[in-house]
Amino acid sequence: MIRAVTHGHLDSLLDPASVAIIGASEDLGKFGGRALHNLMDNGYAGRIIPINPSRDQLRGLPAYGSIGLAPKGIDVAVLALPSSSVEGVVAECAAAGVGACIVISSQFAEAGPEGAARQDALVAVARAANMRLLGPNCLGLAVPSRALALSPSVVFTESGGLRSGGIALVSQSGALMTQMYVTALDARAGFAACVSVGNQADLELVDFMEWFIDDPQARVIACYVEGLKSPERFVGALARARAAGKPVVVAKAGRSAQGALAVSSHTASIAGDHSAFAAACARYGAVLFDEAEDMIRAADVLDRCVRARGTRYAVVSGSGGGAALATDKLAATAYESAVLSPESIAALADSFAETQRKLPIDLGANLAGFGADRAVVPATTVMHDPGVDYAILAMTPQPFIAGAVEAFITAGKQAGKPVLVIAQNEFVRRALADTMEQHGHPILPSLDSAIACLAAFEPMVETTAPKPLEAIDLPGEERLNEIEVKALLRQAGVRTTADVLAHSKDEALAAAQSLGYPVALKAISRTLLHKSDIGGVHLALRDGAGLAAAWDGIAAALSEQGHVLEGCAVAEMVGGVAELIVGARRDPGFGPLLVIGFGGTLVEIVEDVAVALAPITPEEALSMMRRLKLWPLLDGARGRPPADVEAAALAASNISRLAVAMGNRLVELDVNPLIVGAKGQGATAVDGRATLSDSEDQP
Amino acid sequence: MIRAVTHGHLDSLLDPASVAIIGASEDLGKFGGRALHNLMDNGYAGRIIPINPSRDQLRGLPAYGSIGLAPKGIDVAVLALPSSSVEGVVAECAAAGVGACIVISSQFAEAGPEGAARQDALVAVARAANMRLLGPNCLGLAVPSRALALSPSVVFTESGGLRSGGIALVSQSGALMTQMYVTALDARAGFAACVSVGNQADLELVDFMEWFIDDPQARVIACYVEGLKSPERFVGALARARAAGKPVVVAKAGRSAQGALAVSSHTASIAGDHSAFAAACARYGAVLFDEAEDMIRAADVLDRCVRARGTRYAVVSGSGGGAALATDKLAATAYESAVLSPESIAALADSFAETQRKLPIDLGANLAGFGADRAVVPATTVMHDPGVDYAILAMTPQPFIAGAVEAFITAGKQAGKPVLVIAQNEFVRRALADTMEQHGHPILPSLDSAIACLAAFEPMVETTAPKPLEAIDLPGEERLNEIEVKALLRQAGVRTTADVLAHSKDEALAAAQSLGYPVALKAISRTLLHKSDIGGVHLALRDGAGLAAAWDGIAAALSEQGHVLEGCAVAEMVGGVAELIVGARRDPGFGPLLVIGFGGTLVEIVEDVAVALAPITPEEALSMMRRLKLWPLLDGARGRPPADVEAAALAASNISRLAVAMGNRLVELDVNPLIVGAKGQGATAVDGRATLSDSEDQP
Repeated sequence: MIRAVTHGHLDSLLDPASVAIIGASEDLGKFGGRALHNLMDNGYAGRIIPINPSRDQLRGLPAYGSIGLAPKGIDVAVLALPSSSVEGVVAECAAAGVGACIVISSQFAEAGPEGAARQDALVAVARAANMRLLGPNCLGLAVPSRALALSPSVVFTESGGLRSGGIALVSQSGALMTQMYVTALDARAGFAACVSVGNQADLELVDFMEWFIDDPQARVIACYVEGLKSPERFVGALARARAAGKPVVVAKAGRSAQGALAVSSHTASIAGDHSAFAAACARYGAVLFDEAEDMIRAADVLDRCVRARGTRYAVVSGSGGGAALATDKLAATAYESAVLSPESIAALADSFAETQRKLPIDLGANLAGFGADRAVVPATTVMHDPGVDYAILAMTPQPFIAGAVEAFITAGKQAGKPVLVIAQNEFVRRALADTMEQHGHPILPSLDSAIACLAAFEPMVETTAPKPLEAIDLPGEERLNEIEVKALLRQAGVRTTADVLAHSKDEALAAAQSLGYPVALKAISRTLLHKSDIGGVHLALRDGAGLAAAWDGIAAALSEQGHVLEGCAVAEMVGGVAELIVGARRDPGFGPLLVIGFGGTLVEIVEDVAVALAPITPEEALSMMRRLKLWPLLDGARGRPPADVEAAALAASNISRLAVAMGNRLVELDVNPLIVGAKGQGATAVDGRATLSDSEDQP
Repeated sequence: MIRAVTHGHLDSLLDPASVAIIGASEDLGKFGGRALHNLMDNGYAGRIIPINPSRDQLRGLPAYGSIGLAPKGIDVAVLALPSSSVEGVVAECAAAGVGACIVISSQFAEAGPEGAARQDALVAVARAANMRLLGPNCLGLAVPSRALALSPSVVFTESGGLRSGGIALVSQSGALMTQMYVTALDARAGFAACVSVGNQADLELVDFMEWFIDDPQARVIACYVEGLKSPERFVGALARARAAGKPVVVAKAGRSAQGALAVSSHTASIAGDHSAFAAACARYGAVLFDEAEDMIRAADVLDRCVRARGTRYAVVSGSGGGAALATDKLAATAYESAVLSPESIAALADSFAETQRKLPIDLGANLAGFGADRAVVPATTVMHDPGVDYAILAMTPQPFIAGAVEAFITAGKQAGKPVLVIAQNEFVRRALADTMEQHGHPILPSLDSAIACLAAFEPMVETTAPKPLEAIDLPGEERLNEIEVKALLRQAGVRTTADVLAHSKDEALAAAQSLGYPVALKAISRTLLHKSDIGGVHLALRDGAGLAAAWDGIAAALSEQGHVLEGCAVAEMVGGVAELIVGARRDPGFGPLLVIGFGGTLVEIVEDVAVALAPITPEEALSMMRRLKLWPLLDGARGRPPADVEAAALAASNISRLAVAMGNRLVELDVNPLIVGAKGQGATAVDGRATLSDSEDQP
């Protein structure tokens, strides 16, 4: 179910004029004490209404015994109460016309069925009163530009107060939201907003993404996701953010089976299929991170640095050893070391010995004495070199480093190129602190973090969706055999082997005669899923005698296994230089996906597939193939003839259009193998199968 | 050349009674100023002799115009001078009977041939006087227990002074030594010594490893390596350290081609073959790291935590989201998640809702209120669970975390299991600082660092070297053909296909008759290296007609390519379930290496080989095979018959023994393919070739 959310609903949460803290206290050891403290000590300018049955006033503010006794027109109430009292208080809030409740309390859906029932009751009460709910099982939110922290977390005051900036964070995990907040503060990053959505009983992650897309203060959107209530809305938000030019960074838990289990007991979320989620992110250029901390650091880099124009890095260090190790680690990534131009090398002649005028730059080897400006020449030279897209500065504890970092940041600004500065320890961080503050520049704690951030710099190819297929004739069956699948593929413009469905040995012999030998003979039976496993496939039959023997063999094998032989496909044989598997399946959340991989056993062991949301263009299909580990097999590795990858890409694109055209009836469709010929020889679907649902709905 | 180093030579450096600072100054902006400062401010108790031609005294100490004018019997002199003045001053030191010089100055061998010549001159002067040299192009050393810092680096005072502990660090890079020092100090780790060896003109890295092995204060040896002067001495030191029970951790630059280039312009080192270096480390249980910072953190973990007894981890976090993401990332490693026992799950009944009584543990979901002892039950339960080998604590900013970490450290000590504590930001580090200090416990800045440290916990299999082969008959040729290699293999106990060298078609026909069809026919020619590439191999010949045609084909192909056909090998055909390549080669530094990989093109693309120092036992060979990405192919993946891996391992072990027995004549030896049959069917060398040097020396 997709609910339209008007932003007005979120105004009361993100820009409230009045806030009630239910369970307010002066005791910082209590949730309600810290929540009051976070509001007052950050200087929130709206009205603060403490609710506490045993107090008349709290910290100089008039307090009320219940929300019913408090002034009317309260925008938002924060509930930090024992789980069992939450439902009653939410009902009181609804009755009092409160705009929204933030429920910090846990032990709801994440704790099991009984908690889930209590959570449903909360939602029912709120909906009846047109009141919105954030949580339960969350840590609230903060909007630094409003001096607003609606949260019991210690971080919003103990870290030195709220810090404004361009990062707009929405997190399913509360503790992880606070972790990301303080992690970003180490780099003096700032936030447009931080929101934790917990169990998403009512308001969900995407509601806040939508708000952030329209909020001019939000320059980068960061999401920590456990499970999406409505994947299609998430995809819609990604598309809108992209159109609005707002970068989106994402960390998603539940990639592994164990992580997915952890997610379900944390916020009662279903992690879903990770490859589908990743494909959705990739389609709209949202960058996916393994760790929430790296994601928020990348958000800061995107907020406060220019985007790189390419992926050619220049490594710079105060240590030759550090430079060499960083170079080794980067060499194992998909990014590329820059190479200095002859002009740049000449420009470094006064700075370095001849052996050292190259990347990586070892600033410690600078011949130019130890003045504050010793790094200006290397910095200007490297950052303006046309072969350099960005610099990675791995700093070590030396007296000159603040000046060196300043020189690179300045030269980077002039050249319009980003500089990633790494300080692995407190000593270096302290030495650089003033420089980073003055320049409002991010700092990263490790090379691993810097490498993770580089993903945010990968150029995104602009594509337009391929044209939908004309209406297709879809058989009514639930399982389509090779003959039926190949007929569909031909409708979608995919070349297939010529074939004839033969119902008898004589028909098969006649068919082979007209197709011309050699032929393949393959069993057709609705009950038989893996025909080659039980002797249902005979390839490269050279003559009638061979074909007849194969027919008998297939008939015997199927009858032995209890399958009904409906006939056999007689098909021409084609050769090629590589075999691909191109499959499509419908994800319950994200819709049709296209999967490309190589055929054969080895490939399943090395787990080498690329997944994208369907439909894809031929260009996208080619870029998926290039991401496969075994891509060199298609590209003429070790003296092989290069494969006709353009034809394979076109076929994959057409299979993805077919998958879309199959609508809700698609369960899965496999073309296996798609035989790819040498350059110019095309690609041919040789076999395939499909499973359809009986739903008639078309999306 | 291997020089025996007596430890007396290092006494004057690591435990000197008197130190001269040449170029001493009061100006902390100068190298000589900081060097003096580092000695005096750390309270070095020996005699400090400043040398400065224009001063009578410096900081209250009598100063001398030159080393020749200073008192005699100086143990060590620190030279922080312009490169051009170094040679003269080293000569003065030699004349004055100084025990050792530390040359900080750079622009020697790392800067090119002219600098290399000046470096050689330094060494000649020092050797003639039996004086040792550290450097040039280094940052000296520190021995905290002696309050000794012989270095111009800012870190030895500005980081709060020297801190004693069990880490003994030797680094080719000076700046990286100081980086590792301050990085370790973030965790309040301590050092037995820190030494930077720079260009290793005289004293080298291994000299200090040897000293550390015998130094009772050194509990863990950490090495940053760019290139070894004598790999065989390094291997000897690794073996001695292992025998002494001292863990060794290593970071090595030059793994990539670009990193290797960076190394050569940094300390004039040759990075060498990384797989040989890694094989040497693996043989003696030295743990290899990608980053120097992670290496030093792991050294601290090994110094101050107990070793784990296995690799089953328990993830614990204050955040359910953090726990889930950490679980996802760990699931992609070679380590294994622990599973709590039913008893442990029962013990958690009062702490967590039923859905949450499992790993990973979300401490934030604890039902037991917010007292300081809320984590005691989870900590005791998890650490004492027999399925848990260690805990990984990914902490987030919450009020209870110091108590929680304390509970886990305490329970870990009781259970004899290590606890890796991760604090990703300053907020969490500050909250935990006192607890970590009280317990003398390491803290790690990221999950990536923690995962890197886990390598130090991998159990090491104890093995004894296999028995050397009896003397073998080695042909005098430089290139051995298939027939000759297979004869050698049989001497080494490796099963090969039966074969006959036929000099004519008739001999071939007779040989095939006696071997029995089908047979293979393969060209023999000293000038032909890759016989299958030019039609020199015909397999599965079924009869005499086929054999005769194959002979003619081979003869024509070789003659067309200008090769002399000396004959053909007629060999039996064998089948199997997998094809391996087993190769041996002699590394100029590390001696004979054994390489195991799969046969075929795909494998070269996925780069799937394991390398070990020869000789290896069958057990080691099996463990190498298990490390291959495609190991499942041997292990019965996807319904394949499991291969006779024991036979393959025995063959690989015997090939490694053969490689050793070939002594210095071995250049390379390839068995390709070794066809491995199904379980119980053995492994057979089907083809092979070898290149030998003409050296007659046996090692």
